Amino acid sequence: MDKKRIVILGGGFAGVYAAKYLQKLLKKCPEYELCLVSRENYFTYQPMLSEIIGGSIGVTDSVNSLRNLLPNVSIYIREISDIDIVNETITLSPNFNHKNLEIKYEHLIIALGNVTDFRYAPGGLKEHALGFKTLSDAILLRNRLIDIMEVAAIEENPLMRKQMLTVVVAGGGFSGVEVVAEVNDFIRKEIKKYKTISEDDVNVILIHSKSRLMDKELSPSLSLYAEKILKKRGVKILFEQRLASATPYEAILDSGERIPANTIVSTIPSSANPLIEALPLEKWNDRVKTDEFLRVLGTENIWALGDAAAVPTSSTETGYAPATAQFATREAKCLAHNLYASITKAPMKAFHFKALGMMAALGHRSAVVEMFGKIKMSGFIAWLFWRAVYWVKLPGFSRKLKVALSWLLDIIIPAEPVQFKMDMLQGMTHLHYEANQTVFQKGDIGDYLYIIVSGKVQVLKEVGDKSEVIATIGAGEYFGEMALLNEKHRNATIKCIEPTNLIAMKKQDFQILITNFGNLKEHFQTTQSQRISEEKRKLFESQRITSFGDILHPPSEDDKRKSG
Amino acid sequence: MDKKRIVILGGGFAGVYAAKYLQKLLKKCPEYELCLVSRENYFTYQPMLSEIIGGSIGVTDSVNSLRNLLPNVSIYIREISDIDIVNETITLSPNFNHKNLEIKYEHLIIALGNVTDFRYAPGGLKEHALGFKTLSDAILLRNRLIDIMEVAAIEENPLMRKQMLTVVVAGGGFSGVEVVAEVNDFIRKEIKKYKTISEDDVNVILIHSKSRLMDKELSPSLSLYAEKILKKRGVKILFEQRLASATPYEAILDSGERIPANTIVSTIPSSANPLIEALPLEKWNDRVKTDEFLRVLGTENIWALGDAAAVPTSSTETGYAPATAQFATREAKCLAHNLYASITKAPMKAFHFKALGMMAALGHRSAVVEMFGKIKMSGFIAWLFWRAVYWVKLPGFSRKLKVALSWLLDIIIPAEPVQFKMDMLQGMTHLHYEANQTVFQKGDIGDYLYIIVSGKVQVLKEVGDKSEVIATIGAGEYFGEMALLNEKHRNATIKCIEPTNLIAMKKQDFQILITNFGNLKEHFQTTQSQRISEEKRKLFESQRITSFGDILHPPSEDDKRKSG
Repeated sequence: MDKKRIVILGGGFAGVYAAKYLQKLLKKCPEYELCLVSRENYFTYQPMLSEIIGGSIGVTDSVNSLRNLLPNVSIYIREISDIDIVNETITLSPNFNHKNLEIKYEHLIIALGNVTDFRYAPGGLKEHALGFKTLSDAILLRNRLIDIMEVAAIEENPLMRKQMLTVVVAGGGFSGVEVVAEVNDFIRKEIKKYKTISEDDVNVILIHSKSRLMDKELSPSLSLYAEKILKKRGVKILFEQRLASATPYEAILDSGERIPANTIVSTIPSSANPLIEALPLEKWNDRVKTDEFLRVLGTENIWALGDAAAVPTSSTETGYAPATAQFATREAKCLAHNLYASITKAPMKAFHFKALGMMAALGHRSAVVEMFGKIKMSGFIAWLFWRAVYWVKLPGFSRKLKVALSWLLDIIIPAEPVQFKMDMLQGMTHLHYEANQTVFQKGDIGDYLYIIVSGKVQVLKEVGDKSEVIATIGAGEYFGEMALLNEKHRNATIKCIEPTNLIAMKKQDFQILITNFGNLKEHFQTTQSQRISEEKRKLFESQRITSFGDILHPPSEDDKRKSG
Repeated sequence: MDKKRIVILGGGFAGVYAAKYLQKLLKKCPEYELCLVSRENYFTYQPMLSEIIGGSIGVTDSVNSLRNLLPNVSIYIREISDIDIVNETITLSPNFNHKNLEIKYEHLIIALGNVTDFRYAPGGLKEHALGFKTLSDAILLRNRLIDIMEVAAIEENPLMRKQMLTVVVAGGGFSGVEVVAEVNDFIRKEIKKYKTISEDDVNVILIHSKSRLMDKELSPSLSLYAEKILKKRGVKILFEQRLASATPYEAILDSGERIPANTIVSTIPSSANPLIEALPLEKWNDRVKTDEFLRVLGTENIWALGDAAAVPTSSTETGYAPATAQFATREAKCLAHNLYASITKAPMKAFHFKALGMMAALGHRSAVVEMFGKIKMSGFIAWLFWRAVYWVKLPGFSRKLKVALSWLLDIIIPAEPVQFKMDMLQGMTHLHYEANQTVFQKGDIGDYLYIIVSGKVQVLKEVGDKSEVIATIGAGEYFGEMALLNEKHRNATIKCIEPTNLIAMKKQDFQILITNFGNLKEHFQTTQSQRISEEKRKLFESQRITSFGDILHPPSEDDKRKSG
């Protein structure tokens, strides 16, 4: 109970490797307890994450149980709700019970990495783009790809089918290239099993803001090689373009080009963990500044490393270590040594490391590799090298064996496109639409109620062969409630007249609310009857039809029986 | 386009095997199109589902892609929203777009199986019991077991720890026994990796309403053997007991016994698919009655089989075929023959089959097997036999190879307890509490708002060392909003005085609602100020304290700064 705690925040490369090195050194210091706080109980081996999409490795092959990796570390699987560096206390969020858990520390190691952060991203990315950072991102993307093929297989409208089978990946860096290569391989392979859809309907598009792929990581000749390979396999690459906006069925570029697509993957906007933003520490680009010993500037017992830290180094242009696993693992070793030195009053070592090189897989057994700025490889040999290096670095003997077997098996038995669907109770979903987009059309199934967070929409009704604006509604108002209360089908069309953010609530959830918030129901019913009289008035004024009863109130099943 | 459709509803043993046999026979009838509608794009091999819990096979090893199994069948992956036997039309729910899809049929095959159905189950099962029927059930249960170990590992209260590590399985039939055996093996093996919790805290309890296990499936001697094995491994078995109710932290038996447990698995209440209930067809126990040719009584072109059908047979006591995979696959063969015969005007065959036997795995490489009512086996030999039989019956060569390798690998490399967490946006959760249970306590973290669906709760406040009832509230009212609006911690305790059903809404979702439904917020604020004045009044009356300001309004951080 009286042990001094060294608390590591984060279970990625930085946190796990720091824990690994420290658990060895601290064997001689039984008065210290090493703790690691992580959201998941496993360490994700990022370099192999994209292989999950195509299934060439099993879903769990790219992850290691933290308890197996770090047997002498106290593991806390919780969300962090607060870091208090004044009182030297970490607060963890409740789970199962309603109580927070507080941990006091003697030394703190910040290894929170960065997060996919759509907060400052252009409109609609937060709502509609899939990230690609965690195991669950990889599983969700795989599920989505299977979904779109299943849905397209029974879609009769050829334009809809094409839209469903279009995948847009934003970001032509290292991670975007690997994802787009895997996505493209997977869809083009699987689509052959669907008799009703053809490969011609498939569109895999990579959007990159620069003029060549992986411009930060690789030299031009390898960039060009990667581009050639991807294009040959059917990936369309749009250079010097950015995603300006995403909606449920379009990716909109800042050139104004609109790409009809239900699936958008964004590998770009990652920023520091929000927990770090709140810390009163010196920062560079949202990363906590450390000295050359990896100790946070101005502190005695706080350390930082990995993507969350700005570690000074002379080997890069920015003057800080880049946010890569290569650097994180070396920083971990140096940090462990220095922290141990600070405890034992030994001299510390300054951090020094120069990147060895970069590798990227391009799908279909090809890759590009660049080392020491000199050695360049591409194609199958590079791919073998890529696999070999990452396999050697994969922690844990049992994982190594499993991955090797999965790879072997993948040659004999092609992976099956099986989904991991969980029944998700998505109570409320956020949606973003651009001007002139349709939220739903007359005759559609009424499955959601919509609340307007910002923007404006028009309620349209077809009168004869023209459509007429019945109402224009804006922020704080809602629509779609009619179909939920009375009818199965929408009796009007909703069109956005400016960029609009919506909350969609499922029919079932809405009904729960209606049943239980007495007042809410009354409120809705009042609004509804107001709207109906408003509609009646407008229709009268337009003088185009004489009997509108059936449009507003199509006969219910009961009525039909009565009249029949 | 003018093809005649044979539509199979359901992708379980019954549907998939019917499709398998029919796709062969129909090769000679190009004018027919064979369609299969399923919710998932894979066929789950139920007999191996429980092995996923412990990880002795991979997550996808027990499932087969439908497209691989049935290359000549049109596969529709959708929810079914309506079966209209008058107009011979099946309506499928929307996905991606908001449109229903309608399919006309010439012949309909109902193979919808049964579903886990808590609608008529005792209070709280629907809200708090996990089912065990689908792949996602198996993954969710596995995740839960890992969760409770992670949470218990950092829980300081020994009673809470015990409650977290107690798993209650209801139902001592075939499926309940297999699940409890796997759960028990998994927890007791994994718990050894957690230094802070001991196996003594683990409780795995099986509740069975009869006096012996698998009483319907096995003879008494094997039942006793299974009981002995399970007990030896640490499973506690409660015979002649039923679950009367489930709450977030207790399983309550009809004897009145209360078992503190966060995890309850129910393998019992399965009933026919709700879609079948609505059909105007003759039924026996909610199963559609067929003649001996598997044609639905009173119809010409509707067929039924599997757990959704009541197929007459002389080989059982009830006079109907039991709901097992053994029967479903034989019915499929007979049905395919008869449907083909009805098309080609050939004679039909009556269904005839006698069960071969029953097998159940008991974990740790043991099983019980009974065949032809004579041969009985138990232990390791039975387990080898169990594996062999199911392996042979596992459809698809590639699955066979994968499963064999997984089994082999499981001997060398123990599976890792890795979770498949997806970020679930549980907007609203339903909760059930029994009388005298506490929903939350003063000082707890305020993470949810609660709406009372039915029942009554007391709001309690500690005054001195006594707790006093501040208010009693009932259906349609809500509580917990104070902590959400003003404070992080609960300032009162909520206790149920009768069985109570609640809806819990997450802080974040509640805030979305509050921000967007203008009126709702006002409404809440009014209620809140009313409540505060009510509380003030009561406290004045009780005359026990003179200054209550701090209890109702603990100083905020701002106040502290001002006064400090």
